[in-house]
Amino acid sequence: MALIVQKYGGTSVGTTERIEHVARKIKTFRDKGDDVVVVVSAMSGETNRLLELAEAVHPHARGRELDVLLSTGEQVTISLLSMALARLGCPARSYTGSQVCILTDSEFNKARIQTIEQERIREDLGKGRVVVVAGFQGVDEHGNITTLGRGGSDTTAVALAAALKADECQIYTDVDGVYTTDPRVVSDARRLDRITFEEMLEMASLGSKVLQIRSVEFAGKYNVPLRVLSTFVEGPGTLITFEDEDMEEALISGIAFSRDEAQLTVTGVPDHPGVAYKIIGAVSALNIEVDMIVQNVGAADGLADFTFTVHRNDYERAMEGLREAVEKLEAREVRGDTRIAKVSLVGVGMRSHAGIASKMFEALGREGVNILMISTSEIKISVIIQEKYLELAVRALHDAFELAGPPEERVDSAGT
Amino acid sequence: MALIVQKYGGTSVGTTERIEHVARKIKTFRDKGDDVVVVVSAMSGETNRLLELAEAVHPHARGRELDVLLSTGEQVTISLLSMALARLGCPARSYTGSQVCILTDSEFNKARIQTIEQERIREDLGKGRVVVVAGFQGVDEHGNITTLGRGGSDTTAVALAAALKADECQIYTDVDGVYTTDPRVVSDARRLDRITFEEMLEMASLGSKVLQIRSVEFAGKYNVPLRVLSTFVEGPGTLITFEDEDMEEALISGIAFSRDEAQLTVTGVPDHPGVAYKIIGAVSALNIEVDMIVQNVGAADGLADFTFTVHRNDYERAMEGLREAVEKLEAREVRGDTRIAKVSLVGVGMRSHAGIASKMFEALGREGVNILMISTSEIKISVIIQEKYLELAVRALHDAFELAGPPEERVDSAGT
Repeated sequence: MALIVQKYGGTSVGTTERIEHVARKIKTFRDKGDDVVVVVSAMSGETNRLLELAEAVHPHARGRELDVLLSTGEQVTISLLSMALARLGCPARSYTGSQVCILTDSEFNKARIQTIEQERIREDLGKGRVVVVAGFQGVDEHGNITTLGRGGSDTTAVALAAALKADECQIYTDVDGVYTTDPRVVSDARRLDRITFEEMLEMASLGSKVLQIRSVEFAGKYNVPLRVLSTFVEGPGTLITFEDEDMEEALISGIAFSRDEAQLTVTGVPDHPGVAYKIIGAVSALNIEVDMIVQNVGAADGLADFTFTVHRNDYERAMEGLREAVEKLEAREVRGDTRIAKVSLVGVGMRSHAGIASKMFEALGREGVNILMISTSEIKISVIIQEKYLELAVRALHDAFELAGPPEERVDSAGT
Repeated sequence: MALIVQKYGGTSVGTTERIEHVARKIKTFRDKGDDVVVVVSAMSGETNRLLELAEAVHPHARGRELDVLLSTGEQVTISLLSMALARLGCPARSYTGSQVCILTDSEFNKARIQTIEQERIREDLGKGRVVVVAGFQGVDEHGNITTLGRGGSDTTAVALAAALKADECQIYTDVDGVYTTDPRVVSDARRLDRITFEEMLEMASLGSKVLQIRSVEFAGKYNVPLRVLSTFVEGPGTLITFEDEDMEEALISGIAFSRDEAQLTVTGVPDHPGVAYKIIGAVSALNIEVDMIVQNVGAADGLADFTFTVHRNDYERAMEGLREAVEKLEAREVRGDTRIAKVSLVGVGMRSHAGIASKMFEALGREGVNILMISTSEIKISVIIQEKYLELAVRALHDAFELAGPPEERVDSAGT
């Protein structure tokens, strides 16, 4: 008998039929004797419907009233799921973020959880009830409704699991786990049984969209065992956990990639102190996040080339912001490229093994993939390549590092 | 400068355009310097949409979870209206029933308001904000969300007006006031400038659907001046207030009518004590409300006829319930008629004037309308007639008691 926190996202509760399916799923845990706390998102489409209503009455709606509006989405789901559970003879009780005192700061639209009251939840669990909590929302110290921003329901689930010291926090989604890479690109990508928090953080930040980064950070910080599973396909999913000895065996856990990149290069930069700050500072001042940064000391002329990447959506703005800086610096010019992509190897095994980088470059070179930039951290190596080589590069690396599993083990992540 | 509580129903906030219209309306009061507290219902159609979702997951959804679900309807409206007000430069703050502590008992789906906290509302008004409160909902002492049942938003508005000692409680709807009778039946029906609470109660209970009975009772009990106005047409509406000397002048304020009636007659009932109880008791046991009751002592045979009316929807069930009772009583038979209607004259002036009844019967007789049953109270006379005579009877009475106003004063109650 365990205490499990489960989170079901918008797609998993997108229709009343799916809500009934989720209720049956929860009941199997109750029938085994587990205590279950469930966190749900708004039914898919609902948040957008509400945003359109808001847009109609106020083109720049945000702040307090937007949270009052958006929080109704999850409130609808918690009541429907509780009714569906009751119908199965599985007593349940729903709570809004406010009712279960998910106390947050007062940063409307992107609040952060501070504390969670456990008393009512424990009491309900003690009475054999399933506790159904609205994700994504909380309440500030003045009683105002707040929301946690995108992916907030994952964070609610992890925070609840941490507060309740749950045995496991299960994130149900439309894929059945974390894969070595995107199965749409590499057909024999393999579902990982386990992955470490650090690896998951890298995978998430590098474009693998299974889990929201904040919830992974949170789970790591509070030692919450996190499991990603499919709502629609039975299976063990992927457990996100702490590093253990067994895991050292895998050099590389997965390959993440992202097409959302754009590259900017300032050429002919006078090579003296403070130059990097002036370039990156000009971009940061526009609230644009910079990802990879590379500086090549130039040739005999003492001039350097300075290259960095930003999100593709920020490319135009970054370009404009740079022109002025370039003039002041008396650099030669700014060049840019939006047709690039980032491919990253991630794995805690990298720490204790040399040669990963050279094996990577060798595999890419064999396929004629030119590397434009390289960046490394303790558990990942990222390269920027031309976008047209992306699939080729991912498949080549997947083969080179022998990540594929036996095809019969792979379960399709159908969204039924 | 006055403190006004305004209530806008589902039709008045049925689209985002209408919400913007309501916001502009509220702003005119703010511009005059009035303090405004607004109560809103769910956008029209929303409550039914939610009920359909509930029905899909649980055919008999009710109780606590249904209130969690339904209360989202008003929550959407309060946020949208607050945004629309903010856009007009009119600071506003929304509150759910729970946030403003509309404390109710724990009778889910039909809770009754016990107290309302004023502190936050007063504070917001002091800061020049419009306070927008979700109607129809409250919170019980355990923090559970409750709803007040049908028409609950009117009750919320009146309760707030009472708690805040507001100068007026304005109920905005799709008609521009209370009329002497339904303008769809009598084209020269006149809008009443004033009507007493007692008269309004009779009008409401007799089928005039402008206001919910509970809110009128509540307003009467707590001395809240209540005004019914149109959201869509400018005008003074109808003030519902206490009897004053001026009002004595009108004998009759209005004519209410209802087609929702059905009549049942038990014939050949042995005329001894306890018989009435056995008949009505059999119907009440089925949770059917009985309206008018008439017993005619029969002829020489000592047998009486016993007639009463029920809501037409309850007719079949009442008939079945009676058959058994009739056998036990050894009465002759049960007859029924669903093609009847009730017409009532209402007016506090009746108290001090004789001859109203005879004038009524005379007017009906002149038109050949046969009266099937008669019932009177201090301020009303009701008759049951054949349904086919309904319009004729209402028009005849409207003329006989000279209720018509000059046509040019009448404002069409169009719903734009």
